[in-house]
Amino acid sequence: MSDESALAVLRCLARRRLLTPHCPPVTLPAMDFRVRQQKLREHLATTRFDALLVSHLPNIRYLCGFTGSAGLLLVQQQTSVFFTDVRYDTQAHEEVKAAKVVIARKSNFSALGELLSKQRKRHRGWTLGIESDHFTISDRKRLAVVTPSGTRLKDAPSLVERFRMAKDENELGLLRNAVELGAEIFERGLQVLRPGIKEVEVAAEMEVAARRAGADGMSFDTIIAAGPRSAFPHGRASTQPIPAGGFVVCDFGVILSGYCSDQTRTVWVGSVPQDAQRTYEAVRAAQQAAIEAVRPGIAVGEIDAAARKVLKKSGLGRYFTHSTGHGVGLEIHESPRVAKGEREILQPGMVITIEPGVYFPGKWGVRIEDMVVVTAGGCEVLTPTSKEFLAV
Amino acid sequence: MSDESALAVLRCLARRRLLTPHCPPVTLPAMDFRVRQQKLREHLATTRFDALLVSHLPNIRYLCGFTGSAGLLLVQQQTSVFFTDVRYDTQAHEEVKAAKVVIARKSNFSALGELLSKQRKRHRGWTLGIESDHFTISDRKRLAVVTPSGTRLKDAPSLVERFRMAKDENELGLLRNAVELGAEIFERGLQVLRPGIKEVEVAAEMEVAARRAGADGMSFDTIIAAGPRSAFPHGRASTQPIPAGGFVVCDFGVILSGYCSDQTRTVWVGSVPQDAQRTYEAVRAAQQAAIEAVRPGIAVGEIDAAARKVLKKSGLGRYFTHSTGHGVGLEIHESPRVAKGEREILQPGMVITIEPGVYFPGKWGVRIEDMVVVTAGGCEVLTPTSKEFLAV
Repeated sequence: MSDESALAVLRCLARRRLLTPHCPPVTLPAMDFRVRQQKLREHLATTRFDALLVSHLPNIRYLCGFTGSAGLLLVQQQTSVFFTDVRYDTQAHEEVKAAKVVIARKSNFSALGELLSKQRKRHRGWTLGIESDHFTISDRKRLAVVTPSGTRLKDAPSLVERFRMAKDENELGLLRNAVELGAEIFERGLQVLRPGIKEVEVAAEMEVAARRAGADGMSFDTIIAAGPRSAFPHGRASTQPIPAGGFVVCDFGVILSGYCSDQTRTVWVGSVPQDAQRTYEAVRAAQQAAIEAVRPGIAVGEIDAAARKVLKKSGLGRYFTHSTGHGVGLEIHESPRVAKGEREILQPGMVITIEPGVYFPGKWGVRIEDMVVVTAGGCEVLTPTSKEFLAV
Repeated sequence: MSDESALAVLRCLARRRLLTPHCPPVTLPAMDFRVRQQKLREHLATTRFDALLVSHLPNIRYLCGFTGSAGLLLVQQQTSVFFTDVRYDTQAHEEVKAAKVVIARKSNFSALGELLSKQRKRHRGWTLGIESDHFTISDRKRLAVVTPSGTRLKDAPSLVERFRMAKDENELGLLRNAVELGAEIFERGLQVLRPGIKEVEVAAEMEVAARRAGADGMSFDTIIAAGPRSAFPHGRASTQPIPAGGFVVCDFGVILSGYCSDQTRTVWVGSVPQDAQRTYEAVRAAQQAAIEAVRPGIAVGEIDAAARKVLKKSGLGRYFTHSTGHGVGLEIHESPRVAKGEREILQPGMVITIEPGVYFPGKWGVRIEDMVVVTAGGCEVLTPTSKEFLAV
């Protein structure tokens, strides 16, 4: 870009009061992908699987960097091969690291079948794992048709998802960027949030701010749920105007360079009745207790219990109808589930949400959600937005 | 809403130059769902399936109206039962028509299992179909665990998708609304499209216009692909500024009341070389030829052939690297595929895209896409936007 056209762009951005674009598209170093694949290979060597066929797109992105919508990654002990179709020829060659790229002429399955047939002699009694949590029954049948005799297909558990739980340094950087942008667009939402504006209008303000700042999109349908709708845990922004009194639950997230943010703040609109603030503070205390419980070595079920205990004490236990949180990364919902009785043990680098809420059907609801990363000594709250009770 | 607050909203909308919001949320008459389920039942009676477990969410929405993100619909010969979890309690009771709603305490599968066990005596030797194109291997295992003995699980083909191909009157109305909004946001995009603006900025303008007009979201990642990027059939809007000369492929769609639009227009930026306009007109002629071939009783492969024949004559055949189109409705890609050799026979009410394109890697690309509905005598083009060569 010439200086002149760069200036033109800047002027145009300034004229239209755009947010500062966040980080440009990020390419992770090839080394990261090699390290990730190596860990998977070392694990496979301890199992009955000789190779894993990765079909879940976020897992493919994690292992080799491909961001398109169709592909298969075969991770073998020595090499990895990525299959995609002609639409992604250029993109795959640009993006894919630490794997050979094959552009399938007919279908990814048939190209995979051809490769397996070529390797047949080496692979007598070979077991190929498939991601059974993602593979459909029909795809398994299609795969079986092209698999040469001597190669055995076997359902594999969610192996890559387990590695994805603890984030590496580069991933944490990308997650921090996403969380920051998420917090920024909430500030934008607050500027327009007032009685009479439609929920969907507030959502649109936030979404366009995200898009202008370089977000790939939103990590889920933005929730702006006002008045009695705040009592719906999943109150997707509607065309209903925000009423003059009541809570507004704002739950939203951006996808930036592939990584998701997730944040909830609940604000009050109008003059504040005492019980509203009391409810809010109880949820806030529960959220704080859960955050304080986060540290390596603890089971996620205990984080959930910490939040629940505080709400029970305030007599609100039975209004907390969902679980306390979930992992976040390349997907908005990842392992671990932070729920009652769950036994997954927290490790440094895991990124989870802490989001207790209480809901009084027909009246109102309150939820407060941050993203936190588990550190060596406890956790760091990534979400920078204040949690002080806010009336607008 | 009081007149005063309505006025406040209007003033606020006017101040911010919002588009007129399109149709309010649409609820289809319960009768539609009953008719759809009845057709499915009549078909099931001719198969080896005694009942169908519908797990694919667009199919569930089509059959009973539920718009949430988790549920299972059991369609039996006499009754239908919809299972979902506590998050969707209120929503399911509001939305679901022509099916009993069960809120699962543990999981949808276990609630289904309990029901099947209760009906066990009636169901000796009963065969339950599952949607094998959508059901994962793991879910099939989970289902098998809760299925009582005497009930047999059997993979079913995509039955509901076949019914969904021909749209009914209400669906056509919703699709027309979506297509109109799609065309409107393109006008908005054209207002800002000029050299120097980033592709993603044009996309953001269009997306916020869609959201403000009441769209649920976009039907896919907006493609704004300028200059050499126009040669990528899947050039998702990037942060690259639009160069001063070259084609810009704009491929986008909205989701409005659940139904998708899909449209592509390609415009030229800057002074026009002769070969650019010649290429454009060849693609336009190919698109027109395909549209003219559309009528009931013809195989979709012939539509594809009609477009291909024109491009071959212009010496551009080998640059048309993808298929001619696809069905559109509750999903952006539905049956039928309008591709080489495909044998599906067109019927009145089917809605398909016609979108030939040619791509010169490193140079430019052109694609023109409309949505058309098959009528008794031929087809009606739904997309209202001009296809005249346009230089901006």
